[in-house]
Amino acid sequence: MRTIGVGLIGLGTVGSGVVEIFGRHRDDFRRRAGVDIELVRFADRDATRASALGLPSDRFTTEAGDVIADPAVDIVIELIGGTGFARDVVLSSLRSGRSVVTANKALMAAHGQEVMEAAAASGVDIAFEAAVGGGIPIISPLKHCLVSNEITSVLGIVNGTTNYILSRMAADGADYPSALAEAQARGYAEADPTADVDGHDAAAKIAILASIAFNSRVTVDEVPVEGIRAVTPSDIAYAAEMGYAIKLMAIARRTPEGIDARVHPTMIPVTHPLANVTGVYNAIYVTGDAVGETMFFGEGAGSLPAASAVVGDVIDVARHVAGGCLGLVGCTCNEQIPVRDISTLTTGYYVRLVVADEPGVLAKVAGAFADHGVSIASVIQKRVCETGDAEIVYVTHQAGEGAVRSALQDIRAFDVVTEVTAVIRVEDL
Amino acid sequence: MRTIGVGLIGLGTVGSGVVEIFGRHRDDFRRRAGVDIELVRFADRDATRASALGLPSDRFTTEAGDVIADPAVDIVIELIGGTGFARDVVLSSLRSGRSVVTANKALMAAHGQEVMEAAAASGVDIAFEAAVGGGIPIISPLKHCLVSNEITSVLGIVNGTTNYILSRMAADGADYPSALAEAQARGYAEADPTADVDGHDAAAKIAILASIAFNSRVTVDEVPVEGIRAVTPSDIAYAAEMGYAIKLMAIARRTPEGIDARVHPTMIPVTHPLANVTGVYNAIYVTGDAVGETMFFGEGAGSLPAASAVVGDVIDVARHVAGGCLGLVGCTCNEQIPVRDISTLTTGYYVRLVVADEPGVLAKVAGAFADHGVSIASVIQKRVCETGDAEIVYVTHQAGEGAVRSALQDIRAFDVVTEVTAVIRVEDL
Repeated sequence: MRTIGVGLIGLGTVGSGVVEIFGRHRDDFRRRAGVDIELVRFADRDATRASALGLPSDRFTTEAGDVIADPAVDIVIELIGGTGFARDVVLSSLRSGRSVVTANKALMAAHGQEVMEAAAASGVDIAFEAAVGGGIPIISPLKHCLVSNEITSVLGIVNGTTNYILSRMAADGADYPSALAEAQARGYAEADPTADVDGHDAAAKIAILASIAFNSRVTVDEVPVEGIRAVTPSDIAYAAEMGYAIKLMAIARRTPEGIDARVHPTMIPVTHPLANVTGVYNAIYVTGDAVGETMFFGEGAGSLPAASAVVGDVIDVARHVAGGCLGLVGCTCNEQIPVRDISTLTTGYYVRLVVADEPGVLAKVAGAFADHGVSIASVIQKRVCETGDAEIVYVTHQAGEGAVRSALQDIRAFDVVTEVTAVIRVEDL
Repeated sequence: MRTIGVGLIGLGTVGSGVVEIFGRHRDDFRRRAGVDIELVRFADRDATRASALGLPSDRFTTEAGDVIADPAVDIVIELIGGTGFARDVVLSSLRSGRSVVTANKALMAAHGQEVMEAAAASGVDIAFEAAVGGGIPIISPLKHCLVSNEITSVLGIVNGTTNYILSRMAADGADYPSALAEAQARGYAEADPTADVDGHDAAAKIAILASIAFNSRVTVDEVPVEGIRAVTPSDIAYAAEMGYAIKLMAIARRTPEGIDARVHPTMIPVTHPLANVTGVYNAIYVTGDAVGETMFFGEGAGSLPAASAVVGDVIDVARHVAGGCLGLVGCTCNEQIPVRDISTLTTGYYVRLVVADEPGVLAKVAGAFADHGVSIASVIQKRVCETGDAEIVYVTHQAGEGAVRSALQDIRAFDVVTEVTAVIRVEDL
């Protein structure tokens, strides 16, 4: 049995998980998967990481280029992250005839086409299961098991940090800053949480999933994104009162007008399986014309879950190296479907207003919605005790994003309207 | 692009779904998967089925052997079912150098080893994603994405008929016969529902999943099985009162004493994701040492969902035919782990008794449990109005199956005990 050599670049959280899994199971892989895989070379800018992981010093280098140039390396694992140096490493590896396994969502969401083309040009594999949903199998199921379907939608809770924060807010009525602080204290959120809480991480992931599901390239910059900073315990409570949970949803739909892809806080019915996905868990809900509705659930981040996906990819690629059949499943983006502008969206809207508690206000606001053809599904009105103002919550029927924005512009201009305090899209899944 | 020829044997429910998917998407497969696949030959004993599906009569035969002998056939789809003629068809196909895609759970659960060995001997593929969970990707994720894990447990709701019946009973308090009749009326249960309601279908599926997950052959006859006929609305109501749902669970665990595999009605906490899987939906909950907890959810049966999995397999195998790399992932059962006898099981137990409503009864029953080392976690006692008897429900802490059986033997012998009306295992997932 030929030993397949693997070079690992990046010894951070996921990299250390990869080292751990190989330490536990390398012998098992020989028996179970019929391939002998060895981590032959490691690189990280920080030399202390290799010794902390107990890696042999003669296999370690601070230069990624040494790994790529090593003739014993068949497969390069790229765990650097980002779209700068990591892109160079991935492209050089592919061009040198190495297959690449990566967890790099940012790279695949921004430069997926370039990476796929480089792999195809060299006739090697590029695998990136860990880029979305941590250890949850989702990319391989889309490319293999569900490939017989026309996928109509992919709905994901794909960011564990924000799902943890929203779950804490829902469970305890905690406000956003304190839920964020708790997430940071538990290691679920970075010191600078921007990429997570502003939705950019989720946008990269849905760009990747949409590209595969719809066979048409969607890049991260085409995905409109809104984060969770503005979500309040009050909105979560109103949502619950109306039978909804608020989740940071990554949504991708195939529509006659093009691909509808977006990330924003979303009210979904509490009865939907995604509403029960709490804490740091992720789930991706996929609908296809043959399979119907399916959901993939699990831990979306963390060292070992992400490493589970990375090593799963490595084993598959190693089978292909050993079997002499690399490059069998490449880029699937063979169609060119336009990505819709969010202004063309039609969905439900939750709108919360603070207004003066005086006669005629409700009629005035209702009139503004009606003027723009926005029809109201339900209204809740409550008195704000401190100020004597009234808080009104509207949920609209399906309405155009443009119409709702225009109506809100009119409503904000009314003297009797103190503030439009929240606008959250509603998906009646 | 070489056209890969497929022969389809069996034009029943799933077979017609396969024909439909190829009708819709054959051109898409060329673009999306890079393979050109054609259904070149069809067989069924019933010649009217081919014409009902609009298949060309010159490609139809009533003899399966004609399909296997056709030189244009690279891949045989076996959708006959059962372990008799279907086994001959699958083995002949493999021995003649054809790869096989099958949805046949009974065959794989009883003769999996023979089938895998025949495929390996010919160096071809055998794929059977549709055998478990209909369209839900589970076998491929276990063999690929999760292969880096030591899988510790696989817990499945893998029979849609029984899940529908139990869901109806839970929602409406319907009794078993009327819920079954409703399932039959809706086409979710066969006229003879034995294979489903007595748990045999689920047993075959968990045998297959356990074999893959634990890399050790488990056959269907090694799986102790108990169906749902004895479950009553009263048990479901008591379960709900204590925070449990009753599901027909297919359970497989890797334990130090061997593989624990079984199918029986099971109380699981209502907060567990599996408890919310209702109606005809299926879900498989997999725990691995790296990935943690994952769940795969979807439609477990039906023409198009099952056909989705069959055609997904066909496309993968066709890629391998085109790429000249068949037989890459074969049998993974390279270990020999014993399957535990259910008498060695340790779990929680729900026991419902009808007893005479007189002093000392509770103490007597409690004493019998204590004598066998079975400790009680909770008790509910209610008066049965019609008879003046009392109904008592116990839930035990973790206890040995043997000890509980012995305690129940003693308890049944007490004069004051009218009847042991239910014993249901409890899994505090």
